[in-house]
Order: sequence, then structure tokens, then C-alpha cells
Amino acid sequence: MAQSTLAIVGGNAAGMKAASRARRLNPDLKIVVFEEKEYVSYAGCGLPYFTSGVVKEKRDLIVTSPEYFKKVGNIDVHTGHKVIRLNPSGRTLIAKNLHTEKEEIFAFDSLILATGVNPVVPPFPNIHLHRIFTLKTIEDGEGIRQSIQGGKCKEAVIVGGGLIGLEMAENLNAAGLEVSVVELLPQVLPPFSPEVAFFVEKHLRTRGVRLYLGEKVKGFGGDEREGVKKVLTENRELNADLVILSIGVRPNVEIAKLAKIALGPTGAIQVNERMETNIPRIFAAGDCAETKSLITGKPAWVPLGTTANKQGRVAGENAAGGDVQFGGVLPSIVTKVFDLTIAKTGLNEKEAINAGFDVEKAIVLPFDKAHYYPGAKQLLLKLIANRKTHRILGGEVLGEAGADKRVDVLAATIFKGATCEDLSQLDLAYAPPYSPAMDALITGANVMLNKFSGIYTAISADELRQRIDQKDALLLLDVRTPEEYNGGHIPGAWNIPLDKIRERVSEIKGTTSPIVVYCGQSLRSYNASRVLQEFGFGEVTNLEGGIKMWRWGLNKS
Amino acid sequence: MAQSTLAIVGGNAAGMKAASRARRLNPDLKIVVFEEKEYVSYAGCGLPYFTSGVVKEKRDLIVTSPEYFKKVGNIDVHTGHKVIRLNPSGRTLIAKNLHTEKEEIFAFDSLILATGVNPVVPPFPNIHLHRIFTLKTIEDGEGIRQSIQGGKCKEAVIVGGGLIGLEMAENLNAAGLEVSVVELLPQVLPPFSPEVAFFVEKHLRTRGVRLYLGEKVKGFGGDEREGVKKVLTENRELNADLVILSIGVRPNVEIAKLAKIALGPTGAIQVNERMETNIPRIFAAGDCAETKSLITGKPAWVPLGTTANKQGRVAGENAAGGDVQFGGVLPSIVTKVFDLTIAKTGLNEKEAINAGFDVEKAIVLPFDKAHYYPGAKQLLLKLIANRKTHRILGGEVLGEAGADKRVDVLAATIFKGATCEDLSQLDLAYAPPYSPAMDALITGANVMLNKFSGIYTAISADELRQRIDQKDALLLLDVRTPEEYNGGHIPGAWNIPLDKIRERVSEIKGTTSPIVVYCGQSLRSYNASRVLQEFGFGEVTNLEGGIKMWRWGLNKS
Repeated sequence: MAQSTLAIVGGNAAGMKAASRARRLNPDLKIVVFEEKEYVSYAGCGLPYFTSGVVKEKRDLIVTSPEYFKKVGNIDVHTGHKVIRLNPSGRTLIAKNLHTEKEEIFAFDSLILATGVNPVVPPFPNIHLHRIFTLKTIEDGEGIRQSIQGGKCKEAVIVGGGLIGLEMAENLNAAGLEVSVVELLPQVLPPFSPEVAFFVEKHLRTRGVRLYLGEKVKGFGGDEREGVKKVLTENRELNADLVILSIGVRPNVEIAKLAKIALGPTGAIQVNERMETNIPRIFAAGDCAETKSLITGKPAWVPLGTTANKQGRVAGENAAGGDVQFGGVLPSIVTKVFDLTIAKTGLNEKEAINAGFDVEKAIVLPFDKAHYYPGAKQLLLKLIANRKTHRILGGEVLGEAGADKRVDVLAATIFKGATCEDLSQLDLAYAPPYSPAMDALITGANVMLNKFSGIYTAISADELRQRIDQKDALLLLDVRTPEEYNGGHIPGAWNIPLDKIRERVSEIKGTTSPIVVYCGQSLRSYNASRVLQEFGFGEVTNLEGGIKMWRWGLNKS
Repeated sequence: MAQSTLAIVGGNAAGMKAASRARRLNPDLKIVVFEEKEYVSYAGCGLPYFTSGVVKEKRDLIVTSPEYFKKVGNIDVHTGHKVIRLNPSGRTLIAKNLHTEKEEIFAFDSLILATGVNPVVPPFPNIHLHRIFTLKTIEDGEGIRQSIQGGKCKEAVIVGGGLIGLEMAENLNAAGLEVSVVELLPQVLPPFSPEVAFFVEKHLRTRGVRLYLGEKVKGFGGDEREGVKKVLTENRELNADLVILSIGVRPNVEIAKLAKIALGPTGAIQVNERMETNIPRIFAAGDCAETKSLITGKPAWVPLGTTANKQGRVAGENAAGGDVQFGGVLPSIVTKVFDLTIAKTGLNEKEAINAGFDVEKAIVLPFDKAHYYPGAKQLLLKLIANRKTHRILGGEVLGEAGADKRVDVLAATIFKGATCEDLSQLDLAYAPPYSPAMDALITGANVMLNKFSGIYTAISADELRQRIDQKDALLLLDVRTPEEYNGGHIPGAWNIPLDKIRERVSEIKGTTSPIVVYCGQSLRSYNASRVLQEFGFGEVTNLEGGIKMWRWGLNKS
């Protein structure tokens, strides 16, 4: 039998993982990888940290060279080769050698498409000017780094306040630039709830990053010789001698489409659980491939390095004659924004509502360590569950420490479809330097269970704000200490500290209005609301998450 | 109907959690708590950090006072009251007021036993001398702190190298004392595998803590006036002006036993999933109660603060008329030993073998963050799985950062019985500051799957050591770089770097001996072993975890 050939288009996370896996399983296979650029197997997610020099050397990001793949894995890597056409029935592909401009035909028996993504580059006026960058390749990273190192760039504008945009904000700020972020939506980090993203916005501003939210970029000013000088938005002109375009990415499906390989409803390449396309023995993996949401069961396209590695491994194994599956994604994401970590798994509230779920939520703000252990920091956890089944649909966590841990624990819990009851019983490891005796996630699950059973009801800060603005009749009760109250309370709130509530309940005895109770983070208010109910008050609700979630002005007295 | 009374014996984690939960659910219940000591609801796990002043104030550890429980929850807390007898059929108990020495009878309708544990205090000669402490109560913590603060204590001996013993070693060292630990077993931290605990021993020694392992304490020297001066072991006399006895704890089941409340095979109070004992409406929760292992399904007794809180909540809810369950424990534990974190969930290898499982293991040493991100530290992960079902039975993680996170994620994964296949597909959140693209746990699961499928075989450092000592015929192949090899290699190893293996394979062509390949952490050796198998070598195994797991001497060249 002639040697069988596996061709792989794309030499990054998914492609090279697939090549390595295939080789380990099948020493007889001929494996050929085509990569348009000069580097393969690089750590793309590390690029923001490379631009600023936090990651010092380019070689730190380049995991393995083409030579090494050849020497160790007997894998042929053709860099500078752009695959321009596929012939699925003829089992050939045409690759263009970008150095010689020559086109060559290669035959294959099986094929893995790992073509990744293309950054979105809208047809803005002057988009072609120097020092307007996207950030995807090592070459992009080098370009930005050189612009910074020249010392000529003082003012950077980032178009798009998503994960990469904010990672770049941190790194450009660290490199000494004045940084502005322009975002079309009214919040940064669109995958997160507005009230969670709010804390990131606040933190960015304290670090000197200027935010222009809900603002549309129209184009750029500057000239061919000196490059970009301005970013023009609907509302203003911003000085800019460096621009990062981080508006989003699209799956790179050009050659797949030409070859009539089916795309899914998300626009990415459709695959089954074996990562196989509609054409037998042609696989797709990584950022160009569609997958499934483990929460909704529906097609999803979530380009992430973790997913790419796992899918590449599955595609490589199957292309080498194996039979394994990739189940889908939650998805889980995390990013660092200066001193804050913000992370998410599954759906957020809006996504869950849009997917048709009957959504309950809980917001809690416990410490990441025992409250008395030095360096303990408060976390913000927002959990989302299905009110009918109690299944957890997702969660967001934000904090200065331990947010990544909680989201990963939550991801592991809900991976196979856990309920709030399950979460509340998790057996997590406890010692004072690592968590409170009741971890944030367990507290969150318990709050959710209390909501389901009706002993705890809550109102979000947004709803409360709206009811106050509407001048709805309500008694707003602050059950913190007088010192806390005097230091800043919600306008109109009445103060009865929790430990005085039984003796002073007569002060509010005549109230017929609904009562909204709040405290620092809704633990004391929960106790207070139970006492008030004991005393016969009918409608008593808690401000979800307490005063920490109040994003507007406070009164001092 | 007369008011129903819930009596609770013990005012700590389980007892006060039960009281609070019962109150929130049932405002009409009379709730009475009896606590022998003067403090309730204190953070016992924080005591080691209080002795050294890392936690500054006693009040930091005392979550809530008896007065507060009365004012907020209308809960009657009798401190200084020791319950000395129960009459389950008559529904009464006798409590002795330790201030007045008077005995009083209290009637109850339902009862929760939350009597906790007693530290083991063996009848050693001179055990009664001053400055020999156990560490359980606030009073214990204050006694140790005062001894340290007096400045007279210079040399501390800790008897027992378990979790509390080592936490005390860190804290007493931080307080400026010379610290020795005497442990009967040949390793510290008995719940962990010896090769994992080894790294803790090494770390303790670098921080100046003296370890006497496999050594039995016989008694103490000193006199009534000046207190303890020596710890006498089988092999030596150690100077000591402070002794911490941390040999272990036993469930405090005295009054339960007297009242014929059934104990389980572990010696703790037997309960069903509702935390109810063999006598209806008498519950037990926390450290005095038995529970179930979620891995073996068998009775288990694991006194931990997290468990106590969860069980207290369940017992309180059921005592108040609810119907909820506590499922069991893995268990999960974590402790900080100076700069190291060591954590575990489920069973260790020995426990799994003893429980009758067909055990496979995997040891991997990936970084906690992306390898190129500043501050990335290596983790040590040991996973244990059932070879027949692929179910994960447990894991241990050690490292300077991120070990607590990995154990909690693993605990969440295996809580409902996950396989290695499940673990390998977990959708964890990734960004360079938080993890590699393939997290340690996923790498561990993949290694395990490679073992199951037979493409990766390994030998433990202990087995290799034994085979070398026996002078078994074997070719030991170091596939690291010549620089790494020259810096220290296992005696007798031959060096062929991985990237030269295809070209230099002829050097070992004549070998008929089995080959053991190793590298830094068994990733390069895995690739090398696959290449060697491709070239027809039959028996090729990897040193599990690489040279990092070799605990004996190295040769330099």
C-alpha cells in the first residue's frame, strides 16, 4: 500500500496540534502542513504582552520551529505557502509559494482545515495608513512593538473594547502611552453583563484609560508619509499616532467555501463531533470551525485557543484513523485588565433570556480568601440559572484575586449540566489563604436556592433605580451600621442597623409601601428581610448584591 | 400549639450554621445553643495564623457574638454550658453551667449534636507541663500566642506533621522560633503520596524547619515550675520551650454514646442523608458526624470546616421542618506550607488500591500560567483513575501558585463521577496570566488516556530506582539537551537530545534491553518513545514526571 498523506492547512494551535497527534498515533502517515506566514505554532494569545515587552522575546511565543517538527515528528511544514484552492473530489490542493509566486499541486488522502480567523477591517477612510494595526500574527505584534519602541508614539486609540482591546489598553498603558478606547456598544467587554463590565470601566478610568462608549468610529486622519494622526468618531476627533483595530474576527472560510465544503449557520465550517466536514476525511478544527454550545445544544462559533487545541487533537487523531469526539463549548473566557480579572462561563443573563430560558440570577460579593486572612479581596459573582430546572446556565466572576479559579470551578461543575443544588454541595478544598469556609460559588448557589424556595427575593440595582426615578412608593431601608450609612447611602434610604432591627421595628410599623432592604453585599439585608417578614411586613425585597451594585450617586450625612 | 424548641449542642461552624438556617426558615421555633467554651462561631482554621500575629486580632476570628445571634436571630446561646447528658426518649438534656457548677434540665423537641472533635492527647510522661498545647479553641490560640509574645520561647517542637502541624511550623517560624517537627510516619502530610509530600519536606528544610520523620515521641522533659524543656523521642532529645501536639483528632461522641445514639464504623455519629441519627428528630452535623465517601460510597469521617458548614445548614433546615440532603465528601483538602500550596481531592494512590480499585496514575508538571508569562511556576499534578471504568478517583496538586485552583476544578469535575475522557474536554477559561492553553488538568487527563490506549507507558521514579538498584538490564536514555544533561542526570543515563533522535538512533540500534526514556517532565520523552517505537524498539517506557521526580542523587559531567 502506498503511503497515505495527511495535509493540514494552517500551522497554528489547531493545525500543529493535529499534526503532532496524528504523528504520535500513526508513524507511517506522510504529514504536510501549509502555513501562509513564516511562523508556526506560536502563542497568539501572548501577543498583547509581547507588544509592551512584558513578554520579552519573540522566541518566548514561538513554541516550536518547522525544523523541530521535521526532526522530531517527521512533519513537513511549508511556511510562506498559501493554499488557494481545494479539489475535494480529486483529493488535491493548490498552494502558492509566496516567495516564488509559484503555484504547486499537492495530493492528499485526508485533510484538516485549520485556517483560523481574519480580523475584521471595515472600509473606513484612511484605514490603510501606517500604524493602524490589527493583532493576530507575530508580524502584527512586531509592528506594534517597533512603533512603541521608536518612542514616537504617545497617544494610542483602540477601536473596540473587547478582550483583546482591553488587553492592549493595559499593555500600551504599561508601555507609557496615553490610551483611549472607543467602543460602539455602551459598555466594554460585550460578553459580560453591563453591571459587571461597569467595574472594569471604573478600573480602566482609575488607571488613566479614557473610554468613549456607545461611540462610532467613522475613519482616520493622517497622511501617507507620517501615517495615522487622528481617529474620527461621530462625536469627536481623537489624536492618535497608534491605532489598534480590535473590532472582532471572522472565520477564514474562503477556500472551504470555494470547494463547496458546507458552512454552518454561524458562518464557520460545519463539522460533526468527529470534527469532520460534510466531505468524508476532510476535517476542520480551531477558529475556522463551528462547534456546539453545551448549554443550548445549538451551533456556536467561539474562536479560542483552548478550543483550538482540543479540536486539533481530535481532528488529528481521527485523520490518523482514530475515532474520538469533541463535545462542544460552554464557552469559558477570562481576561486580565490591569489589577482586575474578569471571567465568564456559559451564558450571561441576556444571552440566556434570548435563548428562551426562564432565567433567575444571583449576585453575591464574598471574599476570595477567609475575610481575616491578609490580602483577602472581594469577588463579584453573578450566577444565572434556569428557574424551571434549576440548571446553572452560566456565571460571571470579577475580582482582584481568585476570579479565574471560581469560573473554572463553575465551568467544571456545569460542563455536564449541574443544578444549583449540585453547586451548593460541591466539596471544595478550604484553608484560610484560599477561600472562605463557604466558597463564593456555594454562597451563590445557596442564594439561588433561597430564591427558588421563596425565602429570599431581590431587586436589581437597575430596577431599583428605575422605581426610584418613577417615584414608586417604597421604603428603602439601609441595615448597615450608622458609620457605614453616614459614609454614603442611597438617596432616600432610612437607616436601622441589623442588630437594632428587632427593637426598632416599630419605627417603620406604619409602612404600607413595599420595603427594599440593602446592606454592603446583601447578607445582612437577607437576615433583616427575614426579621421583617417575621414581624408581618408583606412585600420585602433585597437589593441584589447590596450597595456595591449601586452605580449612581450616594448621599453622605 | 406550644412553641417548638430546637436545642443545639455545640456553638461552632455546624452548630451556629444550623441555628441560623433554622431561624431563617422558621421564625416561630425556640432555638437554644449550648457551648462549653466562651466563644461561638469562631474561625478555627484561622488559629494557626492568629498564634503568629499574621491574623492580628482575636475579633477577626470571631464571626458573630452570642449577643448578635440573640439580637438578629432571636437565638439563645448559652456559653460556658457543657451538656453532660441526653435523654432522647424524654426529650431533655442536662447542661452544666461551668461558672456556677449547677446542672440544669432543658426540654427540646428536636436536637442537633454539633459537638465537634477532641484533639488526641496521648498519655505521654509529663504531658501536663506548661506550654504543651493542642490547637482547637480560641483559648488554645491565645495560650500559644502569649507564650510566643513573651519572647521566652526560642525552640518549638511540633509533634505530628499533618496539616495543622505544618501550618504551625510556618507560623512559629514566622514568629522567629526554631522549629522542629517530629512525625511518626516516614513522611509529612499523611493524606498525600510520599513522592508529592517529598517536595514539601524539601521546602520545609530550605526554610530552616528540622524534620524528624519515622520517629516516635516517648514523652517530655521539664518541670512544674518552668514547664516543658525537652521532647524525648526514641532516637534523641530535642530542646523545646513550646510544644504543639497535632497528632490528630477524634469525634466528640461522649454524650451521644451515653444516650445510645448509634455510632458508625468510623466511630463518629451515624446519620442518614438528612443528617438525622438513628433517633428521629435528633440530628448530628459537623466534625462529630459520619458521612459518605463520594468515591467509594462507604462511610467516611472527615472533619473539615467546609463540610461542617454544609452539614449544619442541612441539619438546621431539616430540624426546622425541611427536607434536604447532604450527599457526602470527596474529600478535598488544601494547605499552605510557606511558599508552597499542596492540595488533594478524592483518594490518593494507596487509598485507591486499598479500596480495591484497579489504579492507573499520571504525573505531569506543567506551568500554572502560559510558560512565557512572567511569574509562571511549575505545578505537580498526580492523577489517579480506575483503569476499568476510566473514572477519576482523585488527584493531588502541589505548586507555588495555582494548586488550589486545579484541585477545586478537579473536585468539581469528579463530584458526580467524571472520567478521564470528561476531564480532557473540560472547557476552562484561558488567558496567558491564568493557565497554559492546555491546562494542567487537561494534560493530566490526556496522559491518562494515552496510557489507557497503550501509546504511552511509564515507570515511577521509585520503580526505576529499584530496577537500577537490582542491576536490571535497561538502557536509560536522557533526551534533554546536552546542557541539561551535563547539569545533572540520573546515574548511568545516556544522552541523545530529542531533536537528534532520528539521526542518532543508530547509536542504540544494538540494544536488546528495555529502554527507559526521560526528560524534564516527560513531554519530550513521550515524543522520543514514540520515535523509538517507530524504529522498532519494543519495550520503551517513560520515567513518570521526568527527572523532577527523581529524589536521589544526580551525576554531573
